[in-house]
Amino acid sequence: MKILLIGAGGTLGTALRETLLGRGHDVLTAGRRSGELRHDISDPAQITALYAKADTVDAVVSAAGDVPWKPFAEMTPQDYQAAFDGKVLSQIELVRQGIAHVSERGSFTLISGVLAREPVATGSAASMANGAVEAFVRAAAIEIAPQRINAVSPTIFTEDLEKYGAYFPGFPPVDLSEVAQAYVRSIEGSQTGQVYALP
Amino acid sequence: MKILLIGAGGTLGTALRETLLGRGHDVLTAGRRSGELRHDISDPAQITALYAKADTVDAVVSAAGDVPWKPFAEMTPQDYQAAFDGKVLSQIELVRQGIAHVSERGSFTLISGVLAREPVATGSAASMANGAVEAFVRAAAIEIAPQRINAVSPTIFTEDLEKYGAYFPGFPPVDLSEVAQAYVRSIEGSQTGQVYALP
Repeated sequence: MKILLIGAGGTLGTALRETLLGRGHDVLTAGRRSGELRHDISDPAQITALYAKADTVDAVVSAAGDVPWKPFAEMTPQDYQAAFDGKVLSQIELVRQGIAHVSERGSFTLISGVLAREPVATGSAASMANGAVEAFVRAAAIEIAPQRINAVSPTIFTEDLEKYGAYFPGFPPVDLSEVAQAYVRSIEGSQTGQVYALP
Repeated sequence: MKILLIGAGGTLGTALRETLLGRGHDVLTAGRRSGELRHDISDPAQITALYAKADTVDAVVSAAGDVPWKPFAEMTPQDYQAAFDGKVLSQIELVRQGIAHVSERGSFTLISGVLAREPVATGSAASMANGAVEAFVRAAAIEIAPQRINAVSPTIFTEDLEKYGAYFPGFPPVDLSEVAQAYVRSIEGSQTGQVYALP
């Protein structure tokens, strides 16, 4: 399959690229600061430009979503707007504009996260964004068929434990290789409207 | 208790006002076009003005949330932004700005809806907004304690079946009186971080 991978330069994107190449796919990488195509998906106009270059693909895979982390008392309306722009509207636009560029039974796989279901301190914008993405995925699925859409919703990556483990005390981590398998399930399988919660 | 009721002029708000008055509460009504205080909560500055007039309250109760309904193919980025402004950021701002105006163990009760968990056609913006509200409530709860926050997430009201039933085929409806009881559970009880899914 020809796969457009957004956020290819990040920890998750790098792992996804390896897994997908290893399964024989043709992976077109995109990112803000790395990848074959350089675009910021928080700007809808840049998504238009991205798809104009990518042409038709069999799967759009997102590993990109930025949200502010702050104590609730320090959050501003601008922070929640930034979370919406950076992880919600950006991924909705990948789907909305992507419909015309994805093959008939092709798929979109978006990134969400454990904070949709379990909160941590300083994560209220992330929780909001993840909850929005997951409910959107269930809703879009019934309208875009036979094209498909799923979300992958991982907890902290085992590989990130040293850097971010303190934010997730007692949360069982998940290996990037397992997260990549959930993307494979979405891309190569036939499911739609699913949220793959990991672990 | 002194209760600030937002969206007091709507179907739900009217029922809530009756229930809360019937339980002996002092209800201060607010709305865009009706109520003792006239403010549009989709504008953060108007929420500031609203709280300046309401002074200190024991509970903030929201029955207000507007989202666009359209086939996914007709949705625009502006529609999702409108859903975010009208139901997500508006209610987040009610909480964020309300912290200083709600008593020590007082509560916020927000409105979500069944589309967070089950989609219907033309409801992708509503699903996104409801999913965002519910995850936000779980996250805010752990940071604002001992103040409390819950969400009420009803399916279609029995009283709305004639008008909107066609959008919810086979969905069991819920009576407004039952929805009002979920608000009572949030306001007078001690729970926090809960999403009351009805039925």
